[in-house]
Amino acid sequence: MIKQKEIILNHYPRGFHIITKEITNNLDLPDMGILNLFIHHTSAGLTVNENYDSTVLDDFETVFNKMVPENMPYYTHTIEGPDDMPAHIKSTLVGNSVTIPITNGKLNLGTWQGIYLCEFRDGGRRRKVVATIYY
Amino acid sequence: MIKQKEIILNHYPRGFHIITKEITNNLDLPDMGILNLFIHHTSAGLTVNENYDSTVLDDFETVFNKMVPENMPYYTHTIEGPDDMPAHIKSTLVGNSVTIPITNGKLNLGTWQGIYLCEFRDGGRRRKVVATIYY
Amino acid sequence: MIKQKEIILNHYPRGFHIITKEITNNLDLPDMGILNLFIHHTSAGLTVNENYDSTVLDDFETVFNKMVPENMPYYTHTIEGPDDMPAHIKSTLVGNSVTIPITNGKLNLGTWQGIYLCEFRDGGRRRKVVATIYY
Repeated sequence: MIKQKEIILNHYPRGFHIITKEITNNLDLPDMGILNLFIHHTSAGLTVNENYDSTVLDDFETVFNKMVPENMPYYTHTIEGPDDMPAHIKSTLVGNSVTIPITNGKLNLGTWQGIYLCEFRDGGRRRKVVATIYY
Repeated sequence: MIKQKEIILNHYPRGFHIITKEITNNLDLPDMGILNLFIHHTSAGLTVNENYDSTVLDDFETVFNKMVPENMPYYTHTIEGPDDMPAHIKSTLVGNSVTIPITNGKLNLGTWQGIYLCEFRDGGRRRKVVATIYY
Repeated sequence: MIKQKEIILNHYPRGFHIITKEITNNLDLPDMGILNLFIHHTSAGLTVNENYDSTVLDDFETVFNKMVPENMPYYTHTIEGPDDMPAHIKSTLVGNSVTIPITNGKLNLGTWQGIYLCEFRDGGRRRKVVATIYY
């Protein structure tokens, strides 16, 4: 069996943000299954990483800005601002979807794992995620 | 329920290419479900990103070549040419599979999202993708 | 239908390791379906890449250490050692889950494809993977 739900996330500023609770609050999880989250945008991403220490989130933002710097002379897609093309690259590096097992009615994440929204635009709006559960 | 189909893509030169239509022309999509595309190669990849402006595709090629440069003295796997080992790294950075929700009989992509074939070899041949749909 | 199994992998040192056989030895694959592997950690990852030449594995370790160097002055999350924050970044670059089609009772991998455990910590312990099969 399969079910789907569209979730409009709260607004988040540029950076990496833990959204595990916001996602699970919007879902009715089966006993066993799989959750796929798919973000509807090309300048944001989803990943699973450390859920405890906020310095990890800060360092993610720092490192991704160093890996994919803005305002480099080799960009040709510049009409949407200096953060736009780097945002597309970062989105593909991180990925725009995560797939997470569901066990005993809960997301089967490790102790230190949480779901991240990766917001790569300075002026990003509220982001849409399609949740698909098969069980 | 589940169904599978093997798709042999057209030939594409090195670079990033939008293949959304080529994929959907090969598939009979159910009303609701999930599509997984899995590429059968280790020097190409699949991702979802911006589908409108071809300068985005050009900049992806430029940036990935800067992130994973060829002919560096630290490569030891060099017998298949200077583009081979960088192609393996890029394939893992991008990913070799995408999972996309299906809603109302269509791929539930954002307005600006398309499926990319990322061809990392100079002399890449036609690539094979396994499409699995569960519904 | 869906089934799940938790797999505790053997211990591997820091680096990239092929675990295809270790995974399939632990699973009873259906005739057709999909396998999702999800690693329960934020300093290791899973990917699919070249399964033949061990120099590829060595070069992966070299290149990822260059892309995400240790001991840089901009890291603020340093309490768990110099390899910890780079391990989190690498885990998101590689991804913590892979989805692989199953066809004719076998993983439908390309000839040269294998499943990699990417161990990013110096002192990583045995890693837990949740395998979910839907068929």
